[in-house]
Amino acid sequence: MFESAELGHVTTKAEYEVLVPQLRTALLDAQFDLQQLKEFAVVLLVNGVDGAGKGETVNLLNEWMDPRHIVSHAFEAPTEEERERPFMWRFWRALPPKGKIGILFGNWYTEPLRNRVFKRTKKAELDQRLDEINRFETMLVREGVLLIKLWFHLTREAQKQRLKSLEKNPETRWRVTERDWLFFENYDRFHSVAERMLRHTSTGHAPWIIVDGGDQRYRSLLAARTLLEAMQRRLKAAEQKWLPRATAAPLPPAIDTRNLLNSLQLDRPLGKADYQAALAGLQGRLALLTRLPEFASRSVVLVFEGVDAAGKGGAIRRLTAALDARQYRVVPVAAPSEEESAQPYLWRFWRQLPRQGKLVIFDRSWYGRVLVERVEGYCSEADWMRAFGEINDFEDQLIEAGAIVLKFWLSISKEEQLRRFREREAEPHKRYKITPEDWRNRERWDDYERAVCDMIDRSSTENAPWTLVEANNKYYARIKVLETVCDRIEAALK
Amino acid sequence: MFESAELGHVTTKAEYEVLVPQLRTALLDAQFDLQQLKEFAVVLLVNGVDGAGKGETVNLLNEWMDPRHIVSHAFEAPTEEERERPFMWRFWRALPPKGKIGILFGNWYTEPLRNRVFKRTKKAELDQRLDEINRFETMLVREGVLLIKLWFHLTREAQKQRLKSLEKNPETRWRVTERDWLFFENYDRFHSVAERMLRHTSTGHAPWIIVDGGDQRYRSLLAARTLLEAMQRRLKAAEQKWLPRATAAPLPPAIDTRNLLNSLQLDRPLGKADYQAALAGLQGRLALLTRLPEFASRSVVLVFEGVDAAGKGGAIRRLTAALDARQYRVVPVAAPSEEESAQPYLWRFWRQLPRQGKLVIFDRSWYGRVLVERVEGYCSEADWMRAFGEINDFEDQLIEAGAIVLKFWLSISKEEQLRRFREREAEPHKRYKITPEDWRNRERWDDYERAVCDMIDRSSTENAPWTLVEANNKYYARIKVLETVCDRIEAALK
Repeated sequence: MFESAELGHVTTKAEYEVLVPQLRTALLDAQFDLQQLKEFAVVLLVNGVDGAGKGETVNLLNEWMDPRHIVSHAFEAPTEEERERPFMWRFWRALPPKGKIGILFGNWYTEPLRNRVFKRTKKAELDQRLDEINRFETMLVREGVLLIKLWFHLTREAQKQRLKSLEKNPETRWRVTERDWLFFENYDRFHSVAERMLRHTSTGHAPWIIVDGGDQRYRSLLAARTLLEAMQRRLKAAEQKWLPRATAAPLPPAIDTRNLLNSLQLDRPLGKADYQAALAGLQGRLALLTRLPEFASRSVVLVFEGVDAAGKGGAIRRLTAALDARQYRVVPVAAPSEEESAQPYLWRFWRQLPRQGKLVIFDRSWYGRVLVERVEGYCSEADWMRAFGEINDFEDQLIEAGAIVLKFWLSISKEEQLRRFREREAEPHKRYKITPEDWRNRERWDDYERAVCDMIDRSSTENAPWTLVEANNKYYARIKVLETVCDRIEAALK
Repeated sequence: MFESAELGHVTTKAEYEVLVPQLRTALLDAQFDLQQLKEFAVVLLVNGVDGAGKGETVNLLNEWMDPRHIVSHAFEAPTEEERERPFMWRFWRALPPKGKIGILFGNWYTEPLRNRVFKRTKKAELDQRLDEINRFETMLVREGVLLIKLWFHLTREAQKQRLKSLEKNPETRWRVTERDWLFFENYDRFHSVAERMLRHTSTGHAPWIIVDGGDQRYRSLLAARTLLEAMQRRLKAAEQKWLPRATAAPLPPAIDTRNLLNSLQLDRPLGKADYQAALAGLQGRLALLTRLPEFASRSVVLVFEGVDAAGKGGAIRRLTAALDARQYRVVPVAAPSEEESAQPYLWRFWRQLPRQGKLVIFDRSWYGRVLVERVEGYCSEADWMRAFGEINDFEDQLIEAGAIVLKFWLSISKEEQLRRFREREAEPHKRYKITPEDWRNRERWDDYERAVCDMIDRSSTENAPWTLVEANNKYYARIKVLETVCDRIEAALK
């Protein structure tokens, strides 16, 4: 990987002074086009050995370009708030929206590399992490991000010289820490782990670019030109899409009419008096569970999906009635805002993830990608086909970070929905709840049914199973939800 | 994953007898179109629990379609010949060419699943293997393969019933082995590992399809219809390509003119007498090394690349002179044959891999993908960009299987090439060696140089490094090659 970067490239001052003004103009032009077009975001990863000029280069890029459209992030050790969420949480927060450039240094590569260099993880664990990174980056690229990965390299000798010269100068002495020398002592091991990492994550759609960090002028030109050319290539090809070849459809062809939803017995008996008695008992149980000391180090993510008028809101209110208002947040999910549309589709859910000891209740969720977006054609087949894997990856990360994930599909019959629509229209205080869109969605009942079956088959997992709730009787549905929540939390805290 | 497959689907005999004739006609039509078009191959993976009807279904598909264009492979425990090659070798051999259907049961999923069920591997190791499988399947799909993955499922109770009923019938009793019951006892663990495996390898471009194996007629219809519909979808979309968005170019932009090749000092002194003395010594050393008992469990893969007239043939002959003719094979690589063109580009190299104790010398190689195919535009940028990762994966598998991988780039100057071309034209017995194509390639010297630098940066790894050979002086080049081969083999056998 490092062969070309060890040739000892040097740029003279005279050359540099001719090239820089042209380069700055071109960079500003590209940045302007990027911002006008607003079709993609640029993510620039800056990694490599200490002393190879990463920080200086980022400063220079900010100086050369319009800093209002650049967001730079340097990630140090995670804060307490960050440690309570999945590993990738803080990186999701730092993603730039379409039209902007995000420069991330100290990113998702830093910790896996460091942990392996100092043998805190095994080779297989590193590979597993790199595999996750590859899936994450593939998702970013398919979501439209232009991902540029720079690795700043120095030979062993050059790094030693560089650290020494920084130490000699009183103005830069503070920049060399003991940790830098500790890394230097491990140069060979660092080099070998880095090579493995770069190789495993250098993909056709997001290749690593190695920057020889030895000469300040050369590396500045190289980093800036790499960024410029990648932006220019992409601007020229902004309309390009990932068009995968046709594949097998995710759902088996329908041999009979039997499916997960129409196999449910939706009418379940439960009278009002029994309901009220059970409700009080379960709400008490939930209140106690969420006040247990063990609960303080876990979090709960609840997802409610169902057709219009299935009773999601009612079920959620019976849950929250048992909770301390400081402990939970209900997130109603509608069409994405402009800010949210400028990001990969999972972004708006990442920002809502709970800290430890908290619950977040999603009234509709990321499953919109494989439900409404699929059925209404808001995204391509290739997009929602890959979403199953991406959603599984997302939930795996939640669970890995200690979250308890509960997903409910509230199922009512087409007749029951009609009855509820009519009832809502008749009652003045419920009329706002029924819109022409609800009637339109109803016409695509069969398409939604197919999408729901697919969703359950492909995203119900051991750790994050779907619970199908027979919901023609609201009382029964609410009790089943509450009971499931209590059981799952109880089991998880054991 | 298994929700829909556990609903207890049943197809009546009457329905079945109406549907099957139509289905057979449609399958034969699709098969005919596939074979006429010859644009893609179909790979059907058949996996799942024992007793769920995998074998019966494959038999039925063979019966319903034209068996001349189906290749079925059942993989049992690997043979000795297979164990001496990388794990994937036997599956590469079984890939169908474009226009055909290959049915593989007992495929690359079988062993990783079994090893994990019986705790012979750890979770991280399974994940690592699944990651390799994902990369392999992505490559297949991008190479144009239509990949359909069927998982035959049975509930615990259904599997028990099925095994018992097979045992009761004297005609089928032989089919139930102790291993089947051993698997059954581990049903829950099998189920949980399988779920994890299916989830991790169910991608947008190659999703798993779960087949309820409980009812013979239902599962037959489902498997056949899945195959049919996937073929029809793909035939309709046969011209579709993977068009990835533009990315950063793999090689950094040229800030200066310095590169790996023009930094080499190509003229190295070595006189004829010194050459002959050194040659004899090294050939003796190589002969001894390849006769060591330790060598018998290793293999050697040698790659020679270089511009026309760089001296590859001469260097190879000096190597083979030291070897036993039964021990090595020289594989000259030219344009792919028709048979080879009908397969993924790496296929023709997989079939040449050596057994243990053997050497294979490739005179040009899979690196043609990132050299001639890139420069001449025989494949798209996206194709050769992904090739770096695919080639690294390929060589990793060779090394994993115990092969010693050596790669030589023989480098001569443009002037030296001209001198050799003229010399060849002048000498009657060497004139066949020089063609108009050689002159044409020479015109693209700079493009090739760029491609070679990229290749070395992106595929020179710790375990399979490139050796750059300064080759203006043939004597020097041959000695450097022989010495490197001896050193590397010696180090590997230690």
